[in-house]
Amino acid sequence: MGKTVRETFRIPADLRTGADLATLDPRARPIGPRDKTAAAEEMNDLADRLDHLQEALYAEAIGGGTRAVLLVLQGMDTSGKGGVIRHVGGLVNPQGLQIATFKKPTEEELAHHFLWRVRSQVPEPGRIGIFDRSHYEDVLIGRVDELVPEDVWRHRYTEITDFEAELAGQGVTLVKCMLHISPKEQAERLLARLDDPAKRWKYNTGDLDARAKWPAYQDAYAEALHRTDADAAPWYVIPSDRKWYRNWAIAALLAETLADLDPRFPEPGIDVDAERARLAASVVG
Amino acid sequence: MGKTVRETFRIPADLRTGADLATLDPRARPIGPRDKTAAAEEMNDLADRLDHLQEALYAEAIGGGTRAVLLVLQGMDTSGKGGVIRHVGGLVNPQGLQIATFKKPTEEELAHHFLWRVRSQVPEPGRIGIFDRSHYEDVLIGRVDELVPEDVWRHRYTEITDFEAELAGQGVTLVKCMLHISPKEQAERLLARLDDPAKRWKYNTGDLDARAKWPAYQDAYAEALHRTDADAAPWYVIPSDRKWYRNWAIAALLAETLADLDPRFPEPGIDVDAERARLAASVVG
Repeated sequence: MGKTVRETFRIPADLRTGADLATLDPRARPIGPRDKTAAAEEMNDLADRLDHLQEALYAEAIGGGTRAVLLVLQGMDTSGKGGVIRHVGGLVNPQGLQIATFKKPTEEELAHHFLWRVRSQVPEPGRIGIFDRSHYEDVLIGRVDELVPEDVWRHRYTEITDFEAELAGQGVTLVKCMLHISPKEQAERLLARLDDPAKRWKYNTGDLDARAKWPAYQDAYAEALHRTDADAAPWYVIPSDRKWYRNWAIAALLAETLADLDPRFPEPGIDVDAERARLAASVVG
Repeated sequence: MGKTVRETFRIPADLRTGADLATLDPRARPIGPRDKTAAAEEMNDLADRLDHLQEALYAEAIGGGTRAVLLVLQGMDTSGKGGVIRHVGGLVNPQGLQIATFKKPTEEELAHHFLWRVRSQVPEPGRIGIFDRSHYEDVLIGRVDELVPEDVWRHRYTEITDFEAELAGQGVTLVKCMLHISPKEQAERLLARLDDPAKRWKYNTGDLDARAKWPAYQDAYAEALHRTDADAAPWYVIPSDRKWYRNWAIAALLAETLADLDPRFPEPGIDVDAERARLAASVVG
């Protein structure tokens, strides 16, 4: 028996530092398609499976179900958070998605606990939520840029773990993905944004400031992932130097997770034969 | 020169009553693909065009643009509002969509002006908003079921016209579509929902109550469309007995509308050469 997709990408138990993270190859393809053409074919199959599973999850909630899925996307600039939303999120009915983007906190958000703005975006029953960045920013940039003292961000690991356990308890299945890219790949993608007028709007001068702190970010990622990985809220490290592999891996993770939930179309409490008779008798005009 | 997609589906100027509406064929295919296979091919092209146009509209707003598009979907039960969201909305990046579903108003919504809940869902700059039902319910079910006196719903035509002119003034391009189906097609779709366990969750016993009032609804639609059709807020009647034709027609309408807006990727105020030099100098490690 091969490993499942989830087992394959789950963070290694011994990943504790940025140096450990650097041992993971952002171009690895441990399972799945070997090239772009094969990936495109597999994505067609995954699209069908995801479409069906998403509809069943949505329908289940109409019937009173409380389950939802939350895909958390974290990664350095250009790692492909937006690309995953477009190419993986784009595989299912947009009505079933609930996308939240977490930018630099506003004054109002800063006046609240760091989880306040996150709680308001937890997906409703039946939805697949996608977080483009998340509460993890508060132990990433919050740590690297020393926005809060160390004891504060350290305590957040516990707060996050408690919060995510609470989500799991209320029926939200978490799929946390760190999009792992190399500094070399990032440089190429930033250059592409500068060179292509149709991509230039995505370029932020601040991206180079964060890039300059790469090792500090890798340390912050490694510790955050390690401290908050749990069976009810697992972290996956997605090799993301190849966009097609990254998209395939996350689509496959989602499909496997949803299949495991096995959402069911509800049986509405109606008398089907009586309704058929009512329909047959309904005359229009 | 053939007619544009918009000219083809724009409501006829002489459409004033339900009897007029009944003269429009829900199986008409005045332009575009003749069969499902041809439609699938055209949808691939439309997907590429819509994807590009949507991204440009989104980018334009990042650069300070204020334009947005709002697709309003109205139609009898089973006419395919959800199907359009899935199959047409699903063609673009879900991040660029803002979908709002208007169900039976809540107590809180009823305590406000009927446009209150609609205003809060107007798409942000750069987005394609989709309304699954809309403020038009207040001159449809509101009229047919006599939820308010006639002078109240009659006055709403003016309020809607003013509201939509205001939207147009602030840069929101309206694309209002009435999904036109026959009572026979509706009966078949309702039966399919009863017969198929995977569709049964969509069945509402109330749908047959609305079906029983078909002529009153057609009158209400015809007058609402006629009274609120404007160049800045046009109504299109989409032949919807064939799902593939309905989806093609709305995708084509959207693509034509967006192409006409001609959204542009913004030119961020950065010194590209200086940024290239900064990037080249950025050493990671």
